Amino acid sequence: MQKNAIWIMCDQLRWDYLSCYGHPHLHTPNIDSLAEQGVKFNRAYVQSTVCGPSRMSAYTGRYMRSHGSTWNGVPLNAGELTLGDHLAPLGVRNVLVGKTHMVADKRGLDRLGIPHDSKIGQRIAQCGFEVYERDDGLHPDGDYDPAPDYDAYLAANGFEADNPWEHWANSAEGPNGEILNGWLWAHADKPARIPNEHAETPYMTRRAMDFIREAKADGRPWSMHLSYIKPHWPYMVSAPYHDMYCTEHLLPVVRDESERQSPHPLNRAFMDMKFSKNFSRDEVRERVIPAYMGLIKQIDDQLGLLFSFLKENGLWDSTMIIFSSDHGEYLGDHWLGEKYLYHEQSMRIPLIVYDPSPEADQSRGCASDELVELIDVAPTLVDFFGGKPATHILEGRSLTPLLRGDKPSEWREAVFSEYDYSFDPARLAVGVSARDARIFIVFDGRWKMIHSINLPPLLFDLESDPNEFDNLAENPEFQNQLNRMKELLFSWAINPPTRTTLSNEFIESFDDALQVYDSTLDEGIIIGYWDEAELEAEQKKRKDFLQQQAPAK
Amino acid sequence: MQKNAIWIMCDQLRWDYLSCYGHPHLHTPNIDSLAEQGVKFNRAYVQSTVCGPSRMSAYTGRYMRSHGSTWNGVPLNAGELTLGDHLAPLGVRNVLVGKTHMVADKRGLDRLGIPHDSKIGQRIAQCGFEVYERDDGLHPDGDYDPAPDYDAYLAANGFEADNPWEHWANSAEGPNGEILNGWLWAHADKPARIPNEHAETPYMTRRAMDFIREAKADGRPWSMHLSYIKPHWPYMVSAPYHDMYCTEHLLPVVRDESERQSPHPLNRAFMDMKFSKNFSRDEVRERVIPAYMGLIKQIDDQLGLLFSFLKENGLWDSTMIIFSSDHGEYLGDHWLGEKYLYHEQSMRIPLIVYDPSPEADQSRGCASDELVELIDVAPTLVDFFGGKPATHILEGRSLTPLLRGDKPSEWREAVFSEYDYSFDPARLAVGVSARDARIFIVFDGRWKMIHSINLPPLLFDLESDPNEFDNLAENPEFQNQLNRMKELLFSWAINPPTRTTLSNEFIESFDDALQVYDSTLDEGIIIGYWDEAELEAEQKKRKDFLQQQAPAK
Repeated sequence: MQKNAIWIMCDQLRWDYLSCYGHPHLHTPNIDSLAEQGVKFNRAYVQSTVCGPSRMSAYTGRYMRSHGSTWNGVPLNAGELTLGDHLAPLGVRNVLVGKTHMVADKRGLDRLGIPHDSKIGQRIAQCGFEVYERDDGLHPDGDYDPAPDYDAYLAANGFEADNPWEHWANSAEGPNGEILNGWLWAHADKPARIPNEHAETPYMTRRAMDFIREAKADGRPWSMHLSYIKPHWPYMVSAPYHDMYCTEHLLPVVRDESERQSPHPLNRAFMDMKFSKNFSRDEVRERVIPAYMGLIKQIDDQLGLLFSFLKENGLWDSTMIIFSSDHGEYLGDHWLGEKYLYHEQSMRIPLIVYDPSPEADQSRGCASDELVELIDVAPTLVDFFGGKPATHILEGRSLTPLLRGDKPSEWREAVFSEYDYSFDPARLAVGVSARDARIFIVFDGRWKMIHSINLPPLLFDLESDPNEFDNLAENPEFQNQLNRMKELLFSWAINPPTRTTLSNEFIESFDDALQVYDSTLDEGIIIGYWDEAELEAEQKKRKDFLQQQAPAK
Repeated sequence: MQKNAIWIMCDQLRWDYLSCYGHPHLHTPNIDSLAEQGVKFNRAYVQSTVCGPSRMSAYTGRYMRSHGSTWNGVPLNAGELTLGDHLAPLGVRNVLVGKTHMVADKRGLDRLGIPHDSKIGQRIAQCGFEVYERDDGLHPDGDYDPAPDYDAYLAANGFEADNPWEHWANSAEGPNGEILNGWLWAHADKPARIPNEHAETPYMTRRAMDFIREAKADGRPWSMHLSYIKPHWPYMVSAPYHDMYCTEHLLPVVRDESERQSPHPLNRAFMDMKFSKNFSRDEVRERVIPAYMGLIKQIDDQLGLLFSFLKENGLWDSTMIIFSSDHGEYLGDHWLGEKYLYHEQSMRIPLIVYDPSPEADQSRGCASDELVELIDVAPTLVDFFGGKPATHILEGRSLTPLLRGDKPSEWREAVFSEYDYSFDPARLAVGVSARDARIFIVFDGRWKMIHSINLPPLLFDLESDPNEFDNLAENPEFQNQLNRMKELLFSWAINPPTRTTLSNEFIESFDDALQVYDSTLDEGIIIGYWDEAELEAEQKKRKDFLQQQAPAK
């Protein structure tokens, strides 16, 4: 049976806003059903806490320090391989429906003489995806990301405007029919100006189905990245989702007065941002979070339709489905809004993998507490399609053993995440240069350490302090833990896989010969021999070895 | 006056085999004269101790961990920028005459759809150089690096053979006219079979002069990399250089019995190599080192001719000249041959920079004890030609302040070097995987620490132990030093400049605006505002700032 895969990604969906992850009021039966048929990862983390670099890590299977696209708008070097490069040799199409946040490395393409609009130029510019439909989800009246196909769709359906996305899908209406700015949180309790069927999430879900229909005719196997732009702001959702939830459905806020007393300089800088100050007001939380929840409920309903579609089309038993997010959202926890920093609300995501293979039957409905990373998805897909993940490039690990119910003899000791705050006003507030504006997060499942260049470290014990209120980094009692975590960070930092043009397997394939004779002689190179006798002796060893090997071939 | 530059590189020339660096018997008056007119760097180090990665560091201006070409034969990723990319916007030709050891990233070029023989394909394949003549210097009867132009030159001058390079230039003759294998060290005391004028170093020097003549007609400024393949083996030099030196001219061997008692596993593995065992015999040193010295003397004589040529052509006062090497050679010191490991004999090189600018007059003939690295050459050249080195890519520092006699307020604290021994039999001997077969060397001018993955560290105090005989890493007294050096290594490792597609200067150019208003509004993006009043207040700040800025433009 031909295999296919769907890699669903939500934007800014934190791990605990799904019923299968414990939310008591936000019922997501379709996502929950996926978890019941697959494996739910309870400790999944992103490699950077903002869209662009988190996604570039996901698509390259590499940590941010390796791919170098450290923030939204930082181009991914044209020389970096992405999932598409790993799937192509397996004959699998790597297709995009939705958001990537990729920015083309135009200077890199120019240097290489690659026309931006050529087939290869487009593939590089689109992060290795074959674009069925791309939509990064933000289309204000600026130069940001104008004119998605969705605009034309809205116009064709009677929702005409200079900017249909903003005017219809992301605006509300006042009591007298006046347009209300959908970016403003005060209006988050009102419905968007379009019927739900025309909203972004239903539209993109239908586009995914369109692709699947067309792909059937095409015949080649595919891996589709269905990448929703929600529940990311603007917090504006169409009816009936806008008023499904109210104050009593909110999770209790996770914050403590002590966090405001003498915060780390970086925390203070982010607490001072408007989005944090506003999210620290209960009125704001109570207005915004129900819309955030509505956007998630909308996704769940749409996934229900998609899953039915797959079943009706006989694809359910051959399609791997991965459900993920690119980072979380504070929603006022820790007196913060947005993401960026290191708390669980920001760096932890839901990750569910449904593997249709019979080998995965024994793990259906199981939860895994292993430490997993978003960079694990790319090698998992390579593995699923029968490839061998290129470990000299991909830093993630295939989740296959965990999907098959095997308890691997060793798994990773810790997860790592990074954030480049050089683009944030926070950098000016803490007085650090763009070169040094980085934080590095290492979490071993209990202890979380945050290393900053030129700023003090942070250390939390999530066992005794799951809410991360109590920074232990300056407590003399915990210096050993701090040092241990720094050692983990050192081990991670010191030897990144940068030799991406030659595999470890290739190098090690010469080991048998190397153990017997000086294999530089194979190339005619003679190093360190004194005289003819020495050389002949070694050449004899070589000849004997090669003769011995010959029949085996 | 039009500026030009010549970057001379020798191959395997250790720092102390020149009279200006203190060799008492090997007189190199021409190189010495360059030092008298320029600045001689007493503490210059390579970033890897084998040709390929050392050169890739030199040509990219980046540490090995950044460019990823970790050994001879490992392709440099097609996306990596090299000196040529930095000089091109300045209108300067980056020209090669001699060796680079670059291996083309053919898979990378194929992925990008770049034909290998296209103009851009060739430039990428040739490490960003415009090739006037390339010769990597090793042309045995294998598939190594066949048929240099030099072969045709020899044949045209009557030295015909299937392999003129090996048969004539790198062979000797026995008493009865029999051909003696020039790779074998026993024959190093005999002259090569060709007159000196046809030997490789004189030939390549003339090719450099040919280029300079043609460049005059062309008119564009140039930076020429004159990259000799000597004194690297084969240790075979033409008369009269083959018998200029004898046993009493050798530097005393630097080795101690204690080094063989309980060596570090990696030292033991390299000591067990044939080249080390042979170089540990006095008979071998006394046969080989005079030839090594002859090859250096030959280079010095040829540089005398080149320097005269520059003066005669009126180029001396406008041409920067850099003299360097890609790594050293043990020559039996520390019971080792070749390079690869961390001792001064391996990682320290001569580095002399003659800057013709009047601003450099005050430093002529000076020596600098600052810690410098071979990756400093590329930014120095950019600086010399009037460019601003791209600090988000180039990890070296322009040497200009040191050339102008300025004492910079801060210079680097330490130098770093790396070696990937996954290709060496040593890896099998120590039982480490290809992924982990790395050493990292940090040297602060006094303390040298070597960090290995999965092997014990090493620590030397070069002040009390300049010969690096006494490993202090396991001495409890020196744990603080060991930790301090590891901290230096951590700082170097944790935040490499991988954001190469966007500069720090670009990011910081928005700081003035960022201090006044929320500059995401520039793109129409509105994050975290509660209501119209909040948004309008911020938009007013923005408008006022932009109006204030406008007249300044």
